[in-house]
Amino acid sequence: MHHGGDLTDAMIRFGGTKADWLDVSTGINPHPYPFASTFSPSAWCDLPGKAALEKLLAAARTAYKCPANLQMLAAPGTQILISQLPYLLPEGPVAICGPTYTSHGEAFVRAGRAIEEVTSPYALPDRAKIAVIVNPNNPDGRLVDVQSLLSIAQTLRERGGILVLDEAFADVAPGASVLPHLSADNVVVLRSFGKFFGLAGLRLGFMAASAELVPRMATRLDSWAVSGPALELGTAALADLDWQVAMQRQLADEITDLTLCLGNNGLTVFGGTPLYALAAHPNAVALHEALARQKIWTRVFDYAPTWIRIGLPGSSSALQRLAETLAKISPEIHSQ
Amino acid sequence: MHHGGDLTDAMIRFGGTKADWLDVSTGINPHPYPFASTFSPSAWCDLPGKAALEKLLAAARTAYKCPANLQMLAAPGTQILISQLPYLLPEGPVAICGPTYTSHGEAFVRAGRAIEEVTSPYALPDRAKIAVIVNPNNPDGRLVDVQSLLSIAQTLRERGGILVLDEAFADVAPGASVLPHLSADNVVVLRSFGKFFGLAGLRLGFMAASAELVPRMATRLDSWAVSGPALELGTAALADLDWQVAMQRQLADEITDLTLCLGNNGLTVFGGTPLYALAAHPNAVALHEALARQKIWTRVFDYAPTWIRIGLPGSSSALQRLAETLAKISPEIHSQ
Repeated sequence: MHHGGDLTDAMIRFGGTKADWLDVSTGINPHPYPFASTFSPSAWCDLPGKAALEKLLAAARTAYKCPANLQMLAAPGTQILISQLPYLLPEGPVAICGPTYTSHGEAFVRAGRAIEEVTSPYALPDRAKIAVIVNPNNPDGRLVDVQSLLSIAQTLRERGGILVLDEAFADVAPGASVLPHLSADNVVVLRSFGKFFGLAGLRLGFMAASAELVPRMATRLDSWAVSGPALELGTAALADLDWQVAMQRQLADEITDLTLCLGNNGLTVFGGTPLYALAAHPNAVALHEALARQKIWTRVFDYAPTWIRIGLPGSSSALQRLAETLAKISPEIHSQ
Repeated sequence: MHHGGDLTDAMIRFGGTKADWLDVSTGINPHPYPFASTFSPSAWCDLPGKAALEKLLAAARTAYKCPANLQMLAAPGTQILISQLPYLLPEGPVAICGPTYTSHGEAFVRAGRAIEEVTSPYALPDRAKIAVIVNPNNPDGRLVDVQSLLSIAQTLRERGGILVLDEAFADVAPGASVLPHLSADNVVVLRSFGKFFGLAGLRLGFMAASAELVPRMATRLDSWAVSGPALELGTAALADLDWQVAMQRQLADEITDLTLCLGNNGLTVFGGTPLYALAAHPNAVALHEALARQKIWTRVFDYAPTWIRIGLPGSSSALQRLAETLAKISPEIHSQ
């Protein structure tokens, strides 16, 4: 696995302390939901209780507009749901709409499943029993419209298949989520809490799926999967719809500024979401390393050597540092 | 599953708010490791990093005296390790030394494995490929000495078998842990962080096992399984050996007081650990319910109708409340 968001390797290769670095290697909101408010001591000391879990799930159902025919489950992050899901889904070929977040394919391969990467969600192979679509997609932000998703789900349903929809970045693309429109129960929807709420360290994620699938996943995670602090903070944040709407607007503003900044410095943005921009550069890896030597950590992709993903810097001074650094290293990159 | 430590059901059946209740239904230390110190913002906001995880594991190796030939892994609580372990162990019959914590048996049955409950760890069936021993045992506190454990591990090793040792309560029984003495690698040792450190809501647990098994479990849990706050607080607590030694003494004192209190009120303590007492009573369920009507929540066991488990009350006033309540309800129970 090869993810953004961990400066450990960056500091080993390029030096510096955490304070020296500007980390734009993830799609995590740099403006976290306020967490300074003290937790109740019982959040830390007691086993997480059923009543607190029910409250969290109720807040999640409302925030995500989950239909009544689907059950909802909470987990310590969606990563473990991605990892466990292949063991619970029906046999048969798996089609993954790529290129996308690599953990989906890796999890199916680990579980001994045959996977096929397809480039268009509109042309799934007839034999596919399971289709995986990340929507909006990571890293390119590709959006599949809700009607098409419902139609793909229907096609799969006719052959006893399942659509897995990873909506990790749907919070920042209002209207993108299929959840409010679902009546079928052959769809599994994953929602990430940490990205939009800027609390990736808290470990919280959700799965909405059928009454058949959710209890089986719950059994695999077993009791007390979600921590007490995650129950408390998650419930408060998901219920705070005002914060969510204001943050959506703020992130949309900030991605505009980032896109302009990158364009003015020779980087063409061609995709992304309000949490990250995906840009093209003839030598993205050299650019990534030149930025790293200036202690700015970005994300590049083995499978696409001209792509570089840059998350929101989080402040105007950080954006300015990025702009000045790009201007400074430009001769170095172009002479290569 | 049917565990202690959740007042949700108690309040539905017997009323009251959380503040009304004295919860002695668990074996969780009522004196938590200090957690009021503020965490670094990155513990909440960033994806948990590799460097922080390495620090936690180093602290755990030292605190638990883990030998160099075993690898160590951190998880969001041992419950998920118990749940996943059956999928990773070799085929063959499973012997569980019971009666004990029921999640072990339930997890093997869910994974389609044949289990046999044996009453003595010294008489494991010859055909057993996997043996599960909780040491000290929950709820009776039964201790198997280290030499016997090493000998059981050797016997299993000769037939390609594995010994699973759940040391969830070993922190309060210094000398009980097999970890410092292990040279074989066919032993899986589970360690719970939340019980002894009184931080069950944090969700943190460990597995020490072979270099073959640990990476396979790590893959199943996938990246970022442990939260940022758990990494920070866990590292600090495990490194604080002075707190651990002082707490062991304090808990030994408190269990003495609890044992005397119960004995003076008609309850014979015949087992337990410094975190809980196991007592016998001719009608333990009636006693449990009479205490519940007075908002004291204890733990009883389907399989042993004369057993009642009572955790440390946590303060002299709480102990006094327990004593007075037992004296008050005594006529009610004995007239039944």
